Amino acid sequence: MVKICIVGAGSAAFWLSWTRDLCVMKSAPGSTISLVDINKERLNAAYDVGSRYARELGVPITFEKTDDRRQALKGADYVINTAFGGYDYSERMRRTGEKNGYYRGIDAVEFNFVSDYYTILSFRQYQLALDIAADMEEICPDAWLCQVANPIFEVTTLLQRQRSRIKTVGFCDGYIGIYRLLLAIGLNPADADFQIAGLNHCIWLTRLKNKRTGEDGYPLIDRWIAKESQNYWNKHDLSIWEETLSPASVDMYKIYGLYPIGDTTRSFSWKYHYDLETSKKWFGPLGGTDSEVGTLVRLDRFQRNAERLMELTNNPDVKLTAEIPPVKGANEYSDFIDAVELGLEKRLVLNIPNNGIMAQLPGDLTVEVPVVVSKGGRLTPERPAPLPKRLMDFVITPRMLHAEWGLEAFTSGSREMLVENLIRDPRTRSERQARDTIDEILALPGNEDMAAHYR
Amino acid sequence: MVKICIVGAGSAAFWLSWTRDLCVMKSAPGSTISLVDINKERLNAAYDVGSRYARELGVPITFEKTDDRRQALKGADYVINTAFGGYDYSERMRRTGEKNGYYRGIDAVEFNFVSDYYTILSFRQYQLALDIAADMEEICPDAWLCQVANPIFEVTTLLQRQRSRIKTVGFCDGYIGIYRLLLAIGLNPADADFQIAGLNHCIWLTRLKNKRTGEDGYPLIDRWIAKESQNYWNKHDLSIWEETLSPASVDMYKIYGLYPIGDTTRSFSWKYHYDLETSKKWFGPLGGTDSEVGTLVRLDRFQRNAERLMELTNNPDVKLTAEIPPVKGANEYSDFIDAVELGLEKRLVLNIPNNGIMAQLPGDLTVEVPVVVSKGGRLTPERPAPLPKRLMDFVITPRMLHAEWGLEAFTSGSREMLVENLIRDPRTRSERQARDTIDEILALPGNEDMAAHYR
Repeated sequence: MVKICIVGAGSAAFWLSWTRDLCVMKSAPGSTISLVDINKERLNAAYDVGSRYARELGVPITFEKTDDRRQALKGADYVINTAFGGYDYSERMRRTGEKNGYYRGIDAVEFNFVSDYYTILSFRQYQLALDIAADMEEICPDAWLCQVANPIFEVTTLLQRQRSRIKTVGFCDGYIGIYRLLLAIGLNPADADFQIAGLNHCIWLTRLKNKRTGEDGYPLIDRWIAKESQNYWNKHDLSIWEETLSPASVDMYKIYGLYPIGDTTRSFSWKYHYDLETSKKWFGPLGGTDSEVGTLVRLDRFQRNAERLMELTNNPDVKLTAEIPPVKGANEYSDFIDAVELGLEKRLVLNIPNNGIMAQLPGDLTVEVPVVVSKGGRLTPERPAPLPKRLMDFVITPRMLHAEWGLEAFTSGSREMLVENLIRDPRTRSERQARDTIDEILALPGNEDMAAHYR
Repeated sequence: MVKICIVGAGSAAFWLSWTRDLCVMKSAPGSTISLVDINKERLNAAYDVGSRYARELGVPITFEKTDDRRQALKGADYVINTAFGGYDYSERMRRTGEKNGYYRGIDAVEFNFVSDYYTILSFRQYQLALDIAADMEEICPDAWLCQVANPIFEVTTLLQRQRSRIKTVGFCDGYIGIYRLLLAIGLNPADADFQIAGLNHCIWLTRLKNKRTGEDGYPLIDRWIAKESQNYWNKHDLSIWEETLSPASVDMYKIYGLYPIGDTTRSFSWKYHYDLETSKKWFGPLGGTDSEVGTLVRLDRFQRNAERLMELTNNPDVKLTAEIPPVKGANEYSDFIDAVELGLEKRLVLNIPNNGIMAQLPGDLTVEVPVVVSKGGRLTPERPAPLPKRLMDFVITPRMLHAEWGLEAFTSGSREMLVENLIRDPRTRSERQARDTIDEILALPGNEDMAAHYR
């Protein structure tokens, strides 16, 4: 019996799987799920689908919908922030960047090619998260803020530094790429003892063992690379979100000594991203999730999800539990809530304040590590062995610096620091180019608040 | 009464001032100075000029010359390493880089534009320093290794990590740029209490006070910038080595909150270095020390110094003490030796192992800080206040990463890591470009040992 507030409920691209995972939650019966969005059509659809799914299952959940966030926060135990500025918006920003010589836009940068991530221009994501946390301090100070929208690393780090009274956890399912790897190397997931750690979207297989035999699992990876990977790539067209088994991941592993999991290849240099031809070499025929082609595929999936949601709401006779069976999926916030509420203790991969968990990294940023979640919200993180120095110096620290640069620009409100961010971008050929690009983006219709913030 | 061994004595560009500072040293009488070089002509000239200068002064110093370093190390108390691969050699490397699209060569990189520095290709400098230290461990394990040749930061860090039994100190006179600044802002150097700290070639005015009044000196800098700097730049053509008073230094100060001293502007992004036009804007008509023009001026000075040395040795009647009066100059190793030997305690700006001096930085690298040197070699470093976070994230850490990248390539002997270094260079447009450039440089005649090292 909890109250869950979902901010940006209408923009949840996979609302049906969200609904399903919320409805099958052990702590769902008697709970209230309050959906918040400013897009009325989407909000209505999410509300409709959610209520119907719960009814079909016969689970007594009270759904609410509102565009008044503060109202929805009243009595909330969990606030899930999934709000994202939207693909149209980010594509408009990207186009302005490309016009000025920044292939794939100014937010597709080395050590962070995640397209909806906004390394330096995530103004609205930062602002919204801070606003939500400020409201929570006033209205529901003991609630958990579950950050699902990107940039998770930057947002949760910012919240940790500025709104540390609010308990914040970042959720990202990127780590489940490990299962593709286990499948490929022939290690039964049930037998696998794996530990994944790093920064969000930049996570590494810090341990792989066979639980039954106690044997190290890395030799299986080496064998797969040596004997099977080429054959796999010849026969199998890598789709988007399949970076874990891409030549890029293997390349990173060879150089840095730990296997990168999920979309960690995006936290790397331009080596894999110079152009479409390069991306295809490293990520298969679509060129990975961030190439021109991969982005179209991704947008298309998003579009189809959104359309499907509208179709479902327009067809009240469709049986939703047939559409998506009521079997728990990959959304970890529902596991998290069950663990906290009911003591259904669970080991999850979460983004939480470092505070010494990874001693090589500053304490005041967020790391992604396995965490045992216990009743009442006790978090017991695993402390991974130190990452190899080469990995720290060539990948982790540069990734961290990009976050610091973006956050420094945001917290200082200095346009000059946005320019300094861009001056450190390898696509910049002159100070003028950087300065004009920032000015042009800030002058876009709809960016008035951003322009006022960055002076 | 000490024995000083000077490795690369013939390549000391300013041998006359070196000679002078060694001869006026309080601990010079009765000492032996053993000059080592593989260039016989230069070695003979250095020997001749040194011996003559001492004779003219009537200081009993025994000069020796040899091309056998191990011989010279016998009984040494101080080993000064000034050996540098030479300008012809570095210009040849630069040309190969430029041919492949790397303006100013692959070792002129962001956060390190120091032209004789070799961020990634300093193979020979690393190798030589390690060889000297290895010989010292065997022959004179208690002697001090005084590193004067660049890259001081990298070399002393490498020695600290690999040959830590040898006491190593790095000497660089870049910090004396502070005196130009004091002159400009109208603070009498005798009244100035200043503290300068950072990494070599990347040092910052961490404290400036008027000793007499106790007042903060920074407002004088602000006043100079606001009221006088523009006029100064209008009337005064900045020469090379005048970065401290350049528009670039003022720009860095405005962004990072501490004033950069000496050639610290070279430890920055491409913002000041994109092309000659840009360099002129930031460093005056010569475009600073590292532009095409500045480099020519520098090479010309070097050439004239070398020619002057040969002239002096060919004209035994020239009175050297008239040529350069016997008044102590800026070379700090002589102060260092007097402090250690005679207890003439002195506060010097030195490069020494961090070990917690600057707590924001790893312990196992070298920092440049004021150090009181006492009898017997006790070093009492000052612990500067923490540097501003913005400065750490945007300048210091990136500078440090470049050092780590270069050292990792060297210590691993991995050609792949040289390529990874170059892939992180903003001038790189493709992996192929980086790979071909490294291959071409390693294939240059004279680089056979380097090619054998990097596999």
